[in-house]
Amino acid sequence: MNAYAAVDVIRTKRDGGVLSDGQIDWVVDAYTRGRVADEQMSALAMAILLRGMTPAEIARWTAAMIASGERLDLSGVSRPTADKHSTGGVGDKITLPLTPLVAACGAAVPQLSGRGLGHTGGTLDKLESIPGWRAALGNAEFIAQLREVGAVICAAGEGLAPADRKLYALRDVTGTVEAIPLIASSIMSKKIAEGTGALVLDVKVGSGAFMKAESDARELARTMVELGGAHGVRTVALLTDMSTPLGLTVGNAVEVAESVEVLAGGGPADVVELTLALAREMLAAAGLPDADPERALRDGRAMDVWRTMIRAQGGDPDAPLPVAAEVEVVRADRDGFVSAVDAYGIGIAAWRLGAGRARKEDPVSAAAGVVLHRRPGDPVRAGDPLYELRTDDPERIPAARAEAAAAVLVSGQRPAVTPLVIDRIG
Amino acid sequence: MNAYAAVDVIRTKRDGGVLSDGQIDWVVDAYTRGRVADEQMSALAMAILLRGMTPAEIARWTAAMIASGERLDLSGVSRPTADKHSTGGVGDKITLPLTPLVAACGAAVPQLSGRGLGHTGGTLDKLESIPGWRAALGNAEFIAQLREVGAVICAAGEGLAPADRKLYALRDVTGTVEAIPLIASSIMSKKIAEGTGALVLDVKVGSGAFMKAESDARELARTMVELGGAHGVRTVALLTDMSTPLGLTVGNAVEVAESVEVLAGGGPADVVELTLALAREMLAAAGLPDADPERALRDGRAMDVWRTMIRAQGGDPDAPLPVAAEVEVVRADRDGFVSAVDAYGIGIAAWRLGAGRARKEDPVSAAAGVVLHRRPGDPVRAGDPLYELRTDDPERIPAARAEAAAAVLVSGQRPAVTPLVIDRIG
Repeated sequence: MNAYAAVDVIRTKRDGGVLSDGQIDWVVDAYTRGRVADEQMSALAMAILLRGMTPAEIARWTAAMIASGERLDLSGVSRPTADKHSTGGVGDKITLPLTPLVAACGAAVPQLSGRGLGHTGGTLDKLESIPGWRAALGNAEFIAQLREVGAVICAAGEGLAPADRKLYALRDVTGTVEAIPLIASSIMSKKIAEGTGALVLDVKVGSGAFMKAESDARELARTMVELGGAHGVRTVALLTDMSTPLGLTVGNAVEVAESVEVLAGGGPADVVELTLALAREMLAAAGLPDADPERALRDGRAMDVWRTMIRAQGGDPDAPLPVAAEVEVVRADRDGFVSAVDAYGIGIAAWRLGAGRARKEDPVSAAAGVVLHRRPGDPVRAGDPLYELRTDDPERIPAARAEAAAAVLVSGQRPAVTPLVIDRIG
Repeated sequence: MNAYAAVDVIRTKRDGGVLSDGQIDWVVDAYTRGRVADEQMSALAMAILLRGMTPAEIARWTAAMIASGERLDLSGVSRPTADKHSTGGVGDKITLPLTPLVAACGAAVPQLSGRGLGHTGGTLDKLESIPGWRAALGNAEFIAQLREVGAVICAAGEGLAPADRKLYALRDVTGTVEAIPLIASSIMSKKIAEGTGALVLDVKVGSGAFMKAESDARELARTMVELGGAHGVRTVALLTDMSTPLGLTVGNAVEVAESVEVLAGGGPADVVELTLALAREMLAAAGLPDADPERALRDGRAMDVWRTMIRAQGGDPDAPLPVAAEVEVVRADRDGFVSAVDAYGIGIAAWRLGAGRARKEDPVSAAAGVVLHRRPGDPVRAGDPLYELRTDDPERIPAARAEAAAAVLVSGQRPAVTPLVIDRIG
């Protein structure tokens, strides 16, 4: 006998009511076990999207998703742990330099990451362009590497929040991804189950982000910060701009190369700025407020951790990265300033070149992507290179060309400078 | 390649938009063919429930459901055709006397009917208590009987509005039954596909009805009248009271017996009143405004058609009906007036006695039900019988006893009389 009937749970939310703790625990557990059908959960997800959830409902839902699987115990790691999650953006390779940087400053970073779907690529996809590197680690390997190297970026195991895995796949095909309570509980259930002691959220806002509106991004950030606190994870969020791609590269291997530049003490100013801002938040949340990440970039300690981390997962940090068969350089047709580089348009262009996937079973191209030669505000002269389109498959060029051309604007006026970090919530 | 993506259709409605004709045609067809998944359609149904549909969307959705199957051609029937649909009520046996009565007055009645789910029994369940009677007819048999007898009550074939059959089963388990656009299109797609020229809707309102609120019932009635008109079916609706059961019997065989009393010129006043009101509307809509249904009841012509109709489907109109093994008579414990007989409570009592089903695969008991000895307004003395509980299974008595006791009230004051027919919409 069921303690609850799925239809009654759906009706409660459909009619604007508040789900009881018992209803939430039951429906999440029964769905994970296959006793609540996909068509029932999708109707409930749509009702949640349109009716909303109270903070108490979101907290209980998140707890139920965590309880659907194992919660890792990182108490055997002697250093304080701190992780970071980004809601995803175009050219967002920050996890790559950030993870070894924070480890170099004394924290341990248990970064369980995902693959990209849609126009924003995934961290694992990027790292897989390094010859030999493997994303899959068992729990024991994960914890051992965390203890020995202090830095791991790998795929989340099947045992963490299986309810979320099943629910996310369902939401993806039923138009119910965009529910803030479900987004927040999805992200936080995985991060809390992973066992990190501190968490910094990079909540993106702008054309290239999942959240186009700042008000939605703020609500999501606040909801996640509260959820973290309720589960004993010190959590802060930075609200950051995603109207322009981060850095000069959008793709997989090209983003790894740019990350290595940052670790070598160089790299684009915006990537360095955001990496340091997030590192400082992570270190403070981990109880290491006096750590100096700027110095760890300069003196090579972050690069040392990077190399050790890549090697620990079978990768060769010195191996050449894949190179695209076809490169098209696009040049400015007038003098002026780059007035806009639209993140969404560049993301779609990179995706069309092969850097992203349309369905989760699709492969990605390591070498494909867009490399910018100019950033917004930079002066250009007619004939100067603006950006490159890179791909393994020349047939992909025309569609990407149109997207990129619409995304990059040159005009007579230098555009206003907008801040990268918009706000801090925590 | 799909012309549309299911997720885009869902998102359009989710965000409060209007679905295009192309989207509606595609999603109904693709769902019927299994190319849109149940979990996608249930999310769309929930979005429709919460966001609503414009009259144009409802009309197109209904047309798409009709187009999912065959539409019967009744042009070979020489008489004008008129059918009736009730949204369902407790003790609502009106189809039984009404169908032969209207046929006796010169129209042909192509009544494709259903089985009951929940506390309101189905017309087919009631007729199946007649020994030998069978509900299933092929299309050719259906049309032949309509031509020869002028009256058929049988199960709707698989070929009519298959989209509705599939969608209704889905709505039942996903909390999306209560969407007026989907209720209206479900009812009307089947009635229009059945081929009737005229249609009278009996839209119930009150505790024993699907629609508890008069405003919802009015909206449903208006929506269905418009849909009928748009498809060339002359349609009117009566809004009728369902706060009290119709007649003195609630069950299967007991309702057949009461229907036969009406056809014999007797029967409870409210059943006679509603049967005649609906008959006059059907005959007027069929272009026979001068027919005299009252006389056809009195002079035995309606009874003759009933007997012919039952025999044509293998039934024996003279065979004794099943009798319950267990009958409990409940008596008044004080003098006064019957001040209320709540339709919902009596419906639940009859259902608990075995007259209805909880799941569509459950059998129903022919003999079970509730027989009232008094109607609201009737005077009673302590010790007078108020009602009987009938069942095949004595273990069902206690639960039914509690429901019925709470539904039937005796007090010192005669209650106000409320009208049975509340309004006419058409």
